[in-house]
Amino acid sequence: MSGVAEAPAIDPARVIADLRELDARTGGPGGARRLCWGEEWRAARELLGELLGEIDLEPERDEAGNLWTYLPGEQEPALALGSHLDSVPEGGWLDGALGVMAGLGVLRAWASAGDRPPRTLALVDWADEEGARFGRSLFGSSAASGTFDPAELAAAEDAAGLSATEVLAENGIELGRVTEARSRLDRIGSYLELHIEQGPVLELKGIATAAVSGCTGVERHRFRISGRASHAGTTPMGARRDPGLAAAAAALQVEAIAVEGGGVGTVGVLELEPGIPTVVPGTAEMVVDLRHPDREPLAQMLEEVRGALASSAEERRCELGEEPVWRIEPISFDPELVEKAREACEEVTGTGFGLTSGALHDAAEVARRVPAAMIFCRSAGGISHSPKEDSTEADLRAAIEAFGRLAQSTLH
Amino acid sequence: MSGVAEAPAIDPARVIADLRELDARTGGPGGARRLCWGEEWRAARELLGELLGEIDLEPERDEAGNLWTYLPGEQEPALALGSHLDSVPEGGWLDGALGVMAGLGVLRAWASAGDRPPRTLALVDWADEEGARFGRSLFGSSAASGTFDPAELAAAEDAAGLSATEVLAENGIELGRVTEARSRLDRIGSYLELHIEQGPVLELKGIATAAVSGCTGVERHRFRISGRASHAGTTPMGARRDPGLAAAAAALQVEAIAVEGGGVGTVGVLELEPGIPTVVPGTAEMVVDLRHPDREPLAQMLEEVRGALASSAEERRCELGEEPVWRIEPISFDPELVEKAREACEEVTGTGFGLTSGALHDAAEVARRVPAAMIFCRSAGGISHSPKEDSTEADLRAAIEAFGRLAQSTLH
Repeated sequence: MSGVAEAPAIDPARVIADLRELDARTGGPGGARRLCWGEEWRAARELLGELLGEIDLEPERDEAGNLWTYLPGEQEPALALGSHLDSVPEGGWLDGALGVMAGLGVLRAWASAGDRPPRTLALVDWADEEGARFGRSLFGSSAASGTFDPAELAAAEDAAGLSATEVLAENGIELGRVTEARSRLDRIGSYLELHIEQGPVLELKGIATAAVSGCTGVERHRFRISGRASHAGTTPMGARRDPGLAAAAAALQVEAIAVEGGGVGTVGVLELEPGIPTVVPGTAEMVVDLRHPDREPLAQMLEEVRGALASSAEERRCELGEEPVWRIEPISFDPELVEKAREACEEVTGTGFGLTSGALHDAAEVARRVPAAMIFCRSAGGISHSPKEDSTEADLRAAIEAFGRLAQSTLH
Repeated sequence: MSGVAEAPAIDPARVIADLRELDARTGGPGGARRLCWGEEWRAARELLGELLGEIDLEPERDEAGNLWTYLPGEQEPALALGSHLDSVPEGGWLDGALGVMAGLGVLRAWASAGDRPPRTLALVDWADEEGARFGRSLFGSSAASGTFDPAELAAAEDAAGLSATEVLAENGIELGRVTEARSRLDRIGSYLELHIEQGPVLELKGIATAAVSGCTGVERHRFRISGRASHAGTTPMGARRDPGLAAAAAALQVEAIAVEGGGVGTVGVLELEPGIPTVVPGTAEMVVDLRHPDREPLAQMLEEVRGALASSAEERRCELGEEPVWRIEPISFDPELVEKAREACEEVTGTGFGLTSGALHDAAEVARRVPAAMIFCRSAGGISHSPKEDSTEADLRAAIEAFGRLAQSTLH
C-alpha cells in the first residue's frame, strides 16, 4: 500500500478524451441526446461499460437503475464518486457526464497503478437525474436516499403517452421495488461529485473551479389573482380590477425581495386570461420560484412575497389564491469534506472559493444519508441545458485535477 | 302628412317584447348564439323578416350580406336606422339586437299609423359586426363605407378550418363583390344607431341613456422584449437579463400613461417564453391597446408607451422589437346629430349627457360617408359580450324612447 504522497494521480486529458468520445457517440451540433431510459442513454452506459472493461471492472445495476462499479480497497465503508450520464433533450456535453467520467478517472488511476486503495472506491451513475421525461428529477439518487415515493410516478406519462411504469419495465426496472436501492448507501462512507456550475458565478469571479457548500432551498408557489375581465375600450382606468397589473407589480417586488434577501427569485410563468388584446384580463397566474442557501432567510423571502402579492391584489381590488408547487429545504454538505474540496481547488488554482449551488444535484439527495461534497467547474457564459454548454479545456483540467486530489485526500 | 307634433311614437314595450322573443329563439341561460353566418344568426334574421311581414315590408340583402328594409317617404335621401343581429359566442341579448329592434320600432310606428314619413326610412341589419368567426369586425358596414378590402379575408379560416370564402358562399355572398355594397349608402342622408354602452360610464354617472359623440381612436401594438433565458437557481439577480420584468415595469407605465393622458391603455396579452418556473424568461411579448377620443393625445400616449418600453428594456439589457397590430383614427359623429341626440336624451331623462365610445360600432364606419350619431343605453355592471349582459327595463324604455324622438327630429 502506498501513502498519500504516492497516490496515483488522475489523468485529466484522458477524462476529457472520454467525454469527447461520449459526445461523439451520443451528441453533436444539436446537443446531447442522452434522455434517460432511451436508446442513446443506454449507448452512453455501453461506452461506460467498455471503459470500465479496459480496467477489468464490471458495473452492476441496482433496483432504481443506478449503475454501480466497485474497486475493492483495504477497508469499507466505501468512498463513492459519481454523477449522471442522462441529459435533457438538446442538452450539453458536460452536464452530469463530467462527474461520471472524472469518477471513472479516479478508479482508473488506482487500477492502472495496480494499487489497492485504502478504502473501496464506488463509481455511481445515477439514473434519471434530469427528470426530463416524466417530470421527476433526482429519480435514482432519491430512491437511494429514501425520499422517493413510487406513487409519484405511478400515473406519469411521457410526451408520447408512454407510462413511466412501462418505460421503466422496458429497462428492467419494477417501479414498486426502486426504493430497495436504499441499501446501496449502507456501505458508503462519503460521496463526492464533480459537476459543471450551470451558472455564471465562477465566470463573474474569474475562478476555474471551486467547492460547493450545499444546495439552496427552494420555495415554488403558484399565485392566482382574480379581478374582473372587462372591455379594453369601454372600461375607464379607474373602474378596472386588473389582475395582470397586480401580477406585474408583484413580479417587480419579487425581484426586490430576492435582491434584499440575498437569494434569487424568479417569475418564469405569468399567464393572463382570457389573454386577448381587447379585454382587460380577468385572472393572472404566476409561479414564483425563490431560492436561498439558508432556511430562515428563505422563509422570510416567502413571507415578504406573499405580503407583496396580497397588497398588490388588494390595491387593485382583486382576489388572491395560492397553491404550493414544490419546496425543498436548503441542504448543507459535510463541512469537513467541503473544506477538503476548497483546499483541493486552492492547490490547483491558487484560490480557495466556495459557493452554494442554486441548482439541485444528486449529491443533495445523497447528503441526506452520507457525508457529501461537490466541486464545480466554471461554465462558459453560465450556459447549460443547451447545445452551447461548454467549459474551456483549461478549466476542465483544473476541475478534474482538483476532484482527483479531493478523492485522494478523502480516501486517506 | 302629419307634422312633428303628430309623428307616430315608438312603442318601447313592443321593442322590448321583440328582443325577448329573439332571446327566446336564439339565446338563453348560456347567452346569445347568433354567431354571424351560422344557423342561429339566420334564425334571428328570419324573426326579423316575420316582424317586418307584420307591417307588410320585405327586407333585401346587399352584396355584403347586410339586410335593408325601406319604408318609402315623401323624399330622399333616406334616414337609416340600424345595428347588427350577430353576436359573439355566449354573448348578450342586447348587444346589436337593441339597435335593430329599435329601428324596426320606428318603422312600425309609421307603418301602423298608416303615415308616409317625410323622408324614406331605411332599416339596416349590418352583417358580421363582431368579426367573432374570422377576426374582422365591422365587416358589412366597412364594405358599405368603402374601407373593407376583400384581401383581408381571402386567407381567413374559422376555428373549424372553414375558409371565409366558403362560409360566405354558403350564405350567398361572393367575397370579391362585397364592396359593391357601397352603393347602398348613396341614397342615405343620415344614420342613427342605438346600442348598449358595454361599459360602466353611464352607471357611474347614474344616467339611463346618453348621446355618443364619436368613437375613440385605437393604437394596438405588439412589443417583443428579448433578454437571455437562464437557470432560475444558478443565475444571480445581478447577472440576469429578464424581459418578463421589463414587460412588467412597462405594463405599469402603460397604466400611468393612460391615466395621465385621459385615455385608456390595456395590456391584455403578456406571454413569457419558455414560460416554465425554473427558467428566467428569454423573451416576453405584450400587446398594448391604447384608446383616446382625440388624435393628438392618442399619438402622444403611443410615443410615451414606446419610450417606457425602450427604457424598461434597456434597463434590463434587453432588446426591443415592435409590430403594429391595428390602428384606427378617432371618429367624431356629426355635431348637429349629436346635439339632437343629447336633446332627445335630456327630454326623456332630464339630463343631457354625451360620451365617447371606447368600443367600435357600425356607426363609426357609416360616419365616414354619411352624417351619423348614436345613443347609448346604460349597461348593468358595464358588462357585455357575456350571458350576464343586461340593462334594466326602465333603462331600455328610456333609451328606446330617446332613440324614437331622435329619429323623429332627424326626419323633419
